[in-house]
Amino acid sequence: MLDSKTKIAIAGVGTVGKGLIDLLLKYKDKQSKIEISAIASRKKQEFKGATFKNTVFFDDAKELLKFNNYDILVELIGGEKGVSKEIVFNALREKKNVVTANKALVSKFWHQLHSLMEKNDCLLKYEAAVAGGIPIIKVIDEFLLSNKISKIYGILNGTSNYILSNMLLYKKDFKTILSDAQKLGYAEADPKFDIDGTDTAHKLSILSSLAFGCYKNVLKIDNEGIENVDLQDLEIADSLGYKIKLLGLTELRNKNIKNFVYPCLLSKDSFIAKIDGVYNGIVVESNFCKKSCFVGEGAGAHPTATSVLSDIISLSTRRKNGFKKSHKFHYEETSLQSRFGSYYLRFTTYDKPGVISGIANQFKIFKISMKSMLQKEMEFENSNDATIVITTHNCLEKNMMKALKQINRQNFIRKKTVYFRIENY
Amino acid sequence: MLDSKTKIAIAGVGTVGKGLIDLLLKYKDKQSKIEISAIASRKKQEFKGATFKNTVFFDDAKELLKFNNYDILVELIGGEKGVSKEIVFNALREKKNVVTANKALVSKFWHQLHSLMEKNDCLLKYEAAVAGGIPIIKVIDEFLLSNKISKIYGILNGTSNYILSNMLLYKKDFKTILSDAQKLGYAEADPKFDIDGTDTAHKLSILSSLAFGCYKNVLKIDNEGIENVDLQDLEIADSLGYKIKLLGLTELRNKNIKNFVYPCLLSKDSFIAKIDGVYNGIVVESNFCKKSCFVGEGAGAHPTATSVLSDIISLSTRRKNGFKKSHKFHYEETSLQSRFGSYYLRFTTYDKPGVISGIANQFKIFKISMKSMLQKEMEFENSNDATIVITTHNCLEKNMMKALKQINRQNFIRKKTVYFRIENY
Repeated sequence: MLDSKTKIAIAGVGTVGKGLIDLLLKYKDKQSKIEISAIASRKKQEFKGATFKNTVFFDDAKELLKFNNYDILVELIGGEKGVSKEIVFNALREKKNVVTANKALVSKFWHQLHSLMEKNDCLLKYEAAVAGGIPIIKVIDEFLLSNKISKIYGILNGTSNYILSNMLLYKKDFKTILSDAQKLGYAEADPKFDIDGTDTAHKLSILSSLAFGCYKNVLKIDNEGIENVDLQDLEIADSLGYKIKLLGLTELRNKNIKNFVYPCLLSKDSFIAKIDGVYNGIVVESNFCKKSCFVGEGAGAHPTATSVLSDIISLSTRRKNGFKKSHKFHYEETSLQSRFGSYYLRFTTYDKPGVISGIANQFKIFKISMKSMLQKEMEFENSNDATIVITTHNCLEKNMMKALKQINRQNFIRKKTVYFRIENY
Repeated sequence: MLDSKTKIAIAGVGTVGKGLIDLLLKYKDKQSKIEISAIASRKKQEFKGATFKNTVFFDDAKELLKFNNYDILVELIGGEKGVSKEIVFNALREKKNVVTANKALVSKFWHQLHSLMEKNDCLLKYEAAVAGGIPIIKVIDEFLLSNKISKIYGILNGTSNYILSNMLLYKKDFKTILSDAQKLGYAEADPKFDIDGTDTAHKLSILSSLAFGCYKNVLKIDNEGIENVDLQDLEIADSLGYKIKLLGLTELRNKNIKNFVYPCLLSKDSFIAKIDGVYNGIVVESNFCKKSCFVGEGAGAHPTATSVLSDIISLSTRRKNGFKKSHKFHYEETSLQSRFGSYYLRFTTYDKPGVISGIANQFKIFKISMKSMLQKEMEFENSNDATIVITTHNCLEKNMMKALKQINRQNFIRKKTVYFRIENY
């Protein structure tokens, strides 16, 4: 393979697959050592020119189970089961290298995939699975290899970041901006996984597993989405010096690991708060490099294809048997209940006496102290209502949840109290 | 070399060398495939323990010219001539791989070093030469390999960024903050190269050469430092919504290449403006990934050593003869004279009639149009003076320089007019 060409078999020619072929065609000279030996695609596509002169075409990716003339399988079908899973596992069993953008598969079968890699001395690379246009896997796996990472956090989903940014920018509600995003191609027809935090959890699971050598089952990640973020919260947060962002966080302290996905307030001065629109941003904290921050487009055909191609090139120039990490650590889980931090609370109450003392009494019981309170005339809704916004000093999540439960039962409360966590990054 | 250890010879145990040894000692298990076969250091150092059991020690790095028992030379002495140059060239001639943090050497001998590499099929890696804690070389050379880069810009010098940030933060003048920085170890005893832009130019030269395959002679980079940035400019810029940063920029458009280093105003909303203190920040613009931004500590023992070790690991796991870039392009130089952009101007005048019209007349002659004007009472200095701040719409640098030359000759001008370019990133 040293001076010969690297043969790749591409499975799936959707958005990312088309992007990859674009890149290969655009810079033929740079990629002259890559040969496409097979393309599997359900749709009839037109692939013309010298680049495809040695390419075999399949209608069904399952044909790749029998096809053997490739060095690297490039799996771009997606999904944690079915043909994508079959061909990836088959390739690794056949001691072939694999490049994939499939975050669901990689996060779910982390252990099995790594065991197969070690057993068969081959590699699966998945730069494209997390933050398309940011080489975060390379950073963690190759650059920060000699550092001890303590924390990784950031904005890992471009769709939800686009929605939150534009709700505030255009003063429109969630549904309107989501509909705009769908028209513009920034959100899928079924945007469930982007909006409810599942997509962020998949990516966080991969980052956590990679950085801490400890597989993080995605199903166990505490996971809240942005469905309930209201325009008025974005506006009030803004007036208080914050932005609301869907944050994914994985942190290792002593033997405790913490993984959360939720929308939260971030000071406008923090790096992460400044990342708007479809951009992703990731901060890695490590013992020797302190804080490193990476910002780029999180998705889209070309940034993601750049990641795929970077993996292909890396595999074709890298010797096997390099520096491998053990993935056998085990850590205790830290539950969200033990979070110690501050909160933004928006109470919708009837406009009558005794409201503040009703809230304050519960705060006292649960050892919560106020940092700021806002009770201006805010005519968002019904004029018989009062809106009170409180930010708190640090307290235990467990206490906060108990206090809110009690407060929500009070007869002066008109609507369930809205809360967000305030993070200091 | 496949399963055996990679032998490294370390030349120079100063700040970065000590940081590297720290990293190697701290994570022995991870770095178990690296063996230190030699250390050359002028100062007597104490190296104890199993890590050094096969290490030969030299007082003089020149001894490495005769020493042959290593796979990778790690040159951490620095400087573009003398022993560092000798041992690096000698190693490449001997077909050994080299890792260095030496920006002066790499930027000055770019062509010779690359010719030797190609001829002898060995590699010189220099991640640590640019922005210690940011893997920018890896990003350009491995991740964005399939993209066409159009522009790279950012804050490449931590010392000058620290000074500018803290002048504004603590409302102190240049000399006071520089002196503080020296006490805290953020500036060297002789900070000339950090402050006058030379250090930024070295790094920019490397980034430009790498991204555009065109060697950029560092001596030809237009280069202004921060010596003349006054506290009041930082304050006024702040009030106008800008920060002043020492920016390095390399840009390729058509066949024209542009390389500049100067302090300039950046909108507070831009990524780069938000990078304060000793942090470095680099933005890369490319055709497929659009805008990618990388932020981290730019210098210091451990971030820089992280880069060095990342290169060592990469060399020990990478096959030679990978994807190489040709470095044979030639582009025309674009001079700063042809810059088309906006400006911030601060005039110090006698407080008498006719001043504004005197300025405006010159603007008219040279086709410069005003965007904003500020003439508040600003009692920074002598109360007989007037201070006028003007920002302009886009105009040609050539015209602006001519206009300023004329204006500075007018009898109402008390002091040479201060100007900064305004960049929109």
